[in-house]
Amino acid sequence: MRRCDELGCISEEKWRLTRTFASLAMREANALVGSWMREAGLAVREDAAFNLIGRQVSKRRGAKTVLIGSHLDTVRNAGKYDGPLGVLLGVALAARLRDVALPFHLEVVGFSDEEGVRYQTTYLGSRAMLGLLTKKDVQTIEEKGIEKARRPRREFLAYLEAHIEQGPVLEAQNQPLAVVTAIAGQTRISVEFTGQAGHAGTTPMRLRRDALCGAAELILAAEKIGVIATVGQCEVAPGASNVIPGLVSLTLDVRDGSDARRKAACAKLKRTALRIAKRRGLRLHDWCIVQETPSIRMDPAMTRVLHRAVGRGVPALPSGAGHDAAVMARACPAAMLFVRCKGGVSHHPDESVQTSDVARALDALTKVILELADRHD
Amino acid sequence: MRRCDELGCISEEKWRLTRTFASLAMREANALVGSWMREAGLAVREDAAFNLIGRQVSKRRGAKTVLIGSHLDTVRNAGKYDGPLGVLLGVALAARLRDVALPFHLEVVGFSDEEGVRYQTTYLGSRAMLGLLTKKDVQTIEEKGIEKARRPRREFLAYLEAHIEQGPVLEAQNQPLAVVTAIAGQTRISVEFTGQAGHAGTTPMRLRRDALCGAAELILAAEKIGVIATVGQCEVAPGASNVIPGLVSLTLDVRDGSDARRKAACAKLKRTALRIAKRRGLRLHDWCIVQETPSIRMDPAMTRVLHRAVGRGVPALPSGAGHDAAVMARACPAAMLFVRCKGGVSHHPDESVQTSDVARALDALTKVILELADRHD
Repeated sequence: MRRCDELGCISEEKWRLTRTFASLAMREANALVGSWMREAGLAVREDAAFNLIGRQVSKRRGAKTVLIGSHLDTVRNAGKYDGPLGVLLGVALAARLRDVALPFHLEVVGFSDEEGVRYQTTYLGSRAMLGLLTKKDVQTIEEKGIEKARRPRREFLAYLEAHIEQGPVLEAQNQPLAVVTAIAGQTRISVEFTGQAGHAGTTPMRLRRDALCGAAELILAAEKIGVIATVGQCEVAPGASNVIPGLVSLTLDVRDGSDARRKAACAKLKRTALRIAKRRGLRLHDWCIVQETPSIRMDPAMTRVLHRAVGRGVPALPSGAGHDAAVMARACPAAMLFVRCKGGVSHHPDESVQTSDVARALDALTKVILELADRHD
Repeated sequence: MRRCDELGCISEEKWRLTRTFASLAMREANALVGSWMREAGLAVREDAAFNLIGRQVSKRRGAKTVLIGSHLDTVRNAGKYDGPLGVLLGVALAARLRDVALPFHLEVVGFSDEEGVRYQTTYLGSRAMLGLLTKKDVQTIEEKGIEKARRPRREFLAYLEAHIEQGPVLEAQNQPLAVVTAIAGQTRISVEFTGQAGHAGTTPMRLRRDALCGAAELILAAEKIGVIATVGQCEVAPGASNVIPGLVSLTLDVRDGSDARRKAACAKLKRTALRIAKRRGLRLHDWCIVQETPSIRMDPAMTRVLHRAVGRGVPALPSGAGHDAAVMARACPAAMLFVRCKGGVSHHPDESVQTSDVARALDALTKVILELADRHD
């Protein structure tokens, strides 16, 4: 916890915490975390993608690697736990196990870019490690050679990540921890209704084609659709108090642990939007799927191990936000642990966790590593 | 109609029609319309508030004045009929009646500021003529001395105005003209709902306090309230596609010919907003009446004369928009005639009227003046 405080002071901005990919602040953070890794007996290096890696080498011949970590970059005006908590839990775990002979190499990793603030990308660090960067990524990124961070996937035995929940469920259920079942799939849709702008005083209600009234119906339909659905942006044109809205643009963000359920919800919302438009004489000018990412299931066997380690009473939740574990799951079995955070607040300086919850998380992660060691012995 | 075209070319902007209070374009417009007034046999002057006045003097001793007119200023990127049509109908009427001895002076007036674009005011021209400028108006306005345009109200016998409808009702009813019963009262309200911003992926629907969902309910309630009600602005903060809206600001514009009905509707909407906020755990942070103007009834006797002149089958409508007649009604009996406009479009270059409708309006106005002449003979 003290280390989270100390690391939270390393920022590229003076009065708030912002630490983006390959920034001077990240170099400084890597140096500090690297020094703690060394204290924990790890061999430290930074790869070509600025991922910080601390390694405890196994003497077992042909040993593979278990990774535990999270990311060290932050959003702008960030809190100090989103990312770093998972990395520093890894460091604390390695310190605990420094004298234990493991049948696998143990690597604590601080990924360099999960938030994607610098280049509007996501997961640069973990994708570079797995050779999943696109050509466009490599062209866009000023720091040359990050594709050299690629490692063969056969090296990896498992990936384990602890992260703050970034949501209010654990607090509402009075639970310190949760096992993550899946990273939810997401569909982002841009929607545009066009109606007829007109004078707010001279156009009778029955002759109107008010785009905002149509949008309001869709907003309420999304709220009731049965999956996680959010209208976060809603822009009105012309946008004057005395003019009937002629055009409304809004965004829909739809998420669910089940891809089928998410897709069915999106299809139903589109039918609803078309029905609203038809009834009101509007045009559904745009219904554009801007982004669609499938749900990533955490490894069932690893997740069972984790669930046993934390105790059967601990809830299992899908993660609505993306995490490095979603990428690492493509290379090896991955599991993820959520730690309760105060008020569900994240991406904000008010991010807060309880020391006792963090201690429980550390115990659980230790048990998982020891259980994996038994299994691969 | 030709004169409307010609006048529509006098603008302070090159590619669109914009003619604001006391601008060079307005001086030029006044000069042109003044020349047409002289052709119609009127004595022309511009008063201290830049109102253009053409007068046909009556020989009757102690004669009062009947004014007929509208405004010559425009909004930005205006159409060419909103205002000028009423002034030029007055000029055409005066030309028709130049050899008729009337028991009152007939004045055709082109008011200098109805739209209020230059100083974000309204009715500077007609208010100056009636001595209704506020101290603040006089201080704000760069052109000094406009308060000298004030005339004693006892001069005025009646005010008559023709104006495009600026709405779609006449077109929908297939009617060329309407008699205006009242200028509707208006309440402008600013509303702010605050909820709780949060991550769109990690906050379950049942733990949300989404300000936009609350606003959507109010928007639909306003649509059904039974008077003219418009939400023209709706701003969402933080306004990111993946963040639950924590704050929504919107505007409500409520109008009705009946002040009691308008006030009851506003009170009911406020109760609805409070109920929505309570049920959703939002705060109705702001419910501020920004502006409230009472309904102005047109003079019943004058309006009956007008209705007889246009024919009993012609509809009677309240005006949702404000007009100089609303000010002039404070000084003398006022009546107003609406002329159908294409698609209800106004405040836009596409404003359009039919020549045959304008001819009917001219005939009706002529009948009204002759009827008034008979009555005061």
